[in-house]
Amino acid sequence: MRDLVDQIISGNRRALAKAITLIESSHPDHQIEAQELLSKLLCFTGKSIRLGLSGIPGVGKSTLIETFGKMLTSQGLQVAVLTIDPSSKISGGSILGDKTRMEQLARDDMAFIRSSPSKGILGGVARHTRDAMMILEAAGFDVIIIETVGVGQSEVAVAEFVDMFLLLLSPGGGDELQGIKRGIMEIADLVIINKADGDFKNAAVIAAADCRNALHLMQAKSPNWTVKVLQTSALENRGIEEIWDTIQSFKEIMIKSGEFEARRQQQNISAIWSEVNTLLLDQIKGQNFDKIDALEQAVKNNKITPLEAAKELLNSVTD
Amino acid sequence: MRDLVDQIISGNRRALAKAITLIESSHPDHQIEAQELLSKLLCFTGKSIRLGLSGIPGVGKSTLIETFGKMLTSQGLQVAVLTIDPSSKISGGSILGDKTRMEQLARDDMAFIRSSPSKGILGGVARHTRDAMMILEAAGFDVIIIETVGVGQSEVAVAEFVDMFLLLLSPGGGDELQGIKRGIMEIADLVIINKADGDFKNAAVIAAADCRNALHLMQAKSPNWTVKVLQTSALENRGIEEIWDTIQSFKEIMIKSGEFEARRQQQNISAIWSEVNTLLLDQIKGQNFDKIDALEQAVKNNKITPLEAAKELLNSVTD
Repeated sequence: MRDLVDQIISGNRRALAKAITLIESSHPDHQIEAQELLSKLLCFTGKSIRLGLSGIPGVGKSTLIETFGKMLTSQGLQVAVLTIDPSSKISGGSILGDKTRMEQLARDDMAFIRSSPSKGILGGVARHTRDAMMILEAAGFDVIIIETVGVGQSEVAVAEFVDMFLLLLSPGGGDELQGIKRGIMEIADLVIINKADGDFKNAAVIAAADCRNALHLMQAKSPNWTVKVLQTSALENRGIEEIWDTIQSFKEIMIKSGEFEARRQQQNISAIWSEVNTLLLDQIKGQNFDKIDALEQAVKNNKITPLEAAKELLNSVTD
Repeated sequence: MRDLVDQIISGNRRALAKAITLIESSHPDHQIEAQELLSKLLCFTGKSIRLGLSGIPGVGKSTLIETFGKMLTSQGLQVAVLTIDPSSKISGGSILGDKTRMEQLARDDMAFIRSSPSKGILGGVARHTRDAMMILEAAGFDVIIIETVGVGQSEVAVAEFVDMFLLLLSPGGGDELQGIKRGIMEIADLVIINKADGDFKNAAVIAAADCRNALHLMQAKSPNWTVKVLQTSALENRGIEEIWDTIQSFKEIMIKSGEFEARRQQQNISAIWSEVNTLLLDQIKGQNFDKIDALEQAVKNNKITPLEAAKELLNSVTD
């Protein structure tokens, strides 16, 4: 354990991969080890900028992350990318595939890419991703990007533990924009209209204007920051530096106002409550087989309401 | 209370509205009354077909529900529409507006429309909507439609308590289709390509084919039912009867196979566990002010991990 901690702090890639695998394991022994590891690493965390990045499939996330990531590593910054892959709840399949999506970045010594299939248990994914992020911070990564697909619940969960949330949109499809902007746009700190190239150049200008209009109508996420809308072409490598400039000015403004630290503290507290949820359910399910069975039967047959059954189960662990 | 129960069972609209308001109230007395009411109504529930219907803004949900609803009422069926409005987590504003969206249906004596703003507490919304559905069942509605906007988490929550989930798509925008189909398409039992009219007629044919292809690649939600893809024009009143035919054949097949009842029982059991979650959090937060404060401070300052704090809080109510 001491060794693993040291190796992680020194940025050893194999140790990192091993530690994240440990975190993702459902084996009870591994979970205890993982928590011990996280406890030991806690004092080394806090120095990265934590970015969430979301966009629906086809919007160009991989290309953008690769271009953006390579720019950062060329400036001597270490970049980690964690991908939450919302494999379907039913099939367990993978949408995003693995790091072969970002070949150049994957081969870069200054970068680390890891894809975690989500398996449908949102609380679990959020915890694993958050824990993995902490490990990467302890390992000294300057920029951590948590990538999500923008179609499910993951975005809201990720927004709960990153410093800044980037939303990637494509210029085409007004309806699509309409669909995404109300739910997810409100958690965004920066909106990027990608593929602002070729035939889409004009469409991107219009989409950006639409976005700005929409953002004007919404209540601001932060009193200290006005959400920016950028146009980029990951393909033509345009607008990528502006993303980094915007992130840095966001960070500066947020730190100065005290909101940067306040947000992180608030996020830590939210994490407590989501853990409480998960743990309590585990505990009830671990001890009341007969009672659970009887109550479930009663609810199944419409004898009592789910809430009445829930109250009985709660009493059984708290009395 | 006895009066209210009787009035609901006899389908009194004012009593229904009053009961749903009672359910949505956060006042403790009202909550107790609401639970008492639900307990009393439980034996009158179970006879409606419970439909979820989702689609992003702009896809034509209101027009479709109005046309579909009017068709049902003209056949002598009573129709209730419950809308979950995912008002933004931050602003609390309303996307969908109210029942003025479905003016004709709202004026129809055989119909009942109710819009519930979601206020961001998913568990709470799910419970309220589920409870409201139960009340409407007890009141004798034949068809209950739970409408969601398709951009957030509500769909998955709603899919947990309806018999059949309808997904509405628009013909345009391949990207949009790509975005929605993996996350939400898997919970759909019926996909409806709406706006299959005018310039979009051909696009609708292509979109329907795309959908069918996508569905082929997915693991089926049910062993007894192959997801259908229909093309409709709510505007031109085409394809609407096919929706109802499909729903009826779905119901018949599911009842015959036993899956209809099995799904409902499983849903009741899931509801227990989501209630347990909600109740336990309420309980912890109600009694440990000092401890919560100390633990939150320790987590804020990176002294302990959120999981460690969660374990302590759990011990405080269960020991």
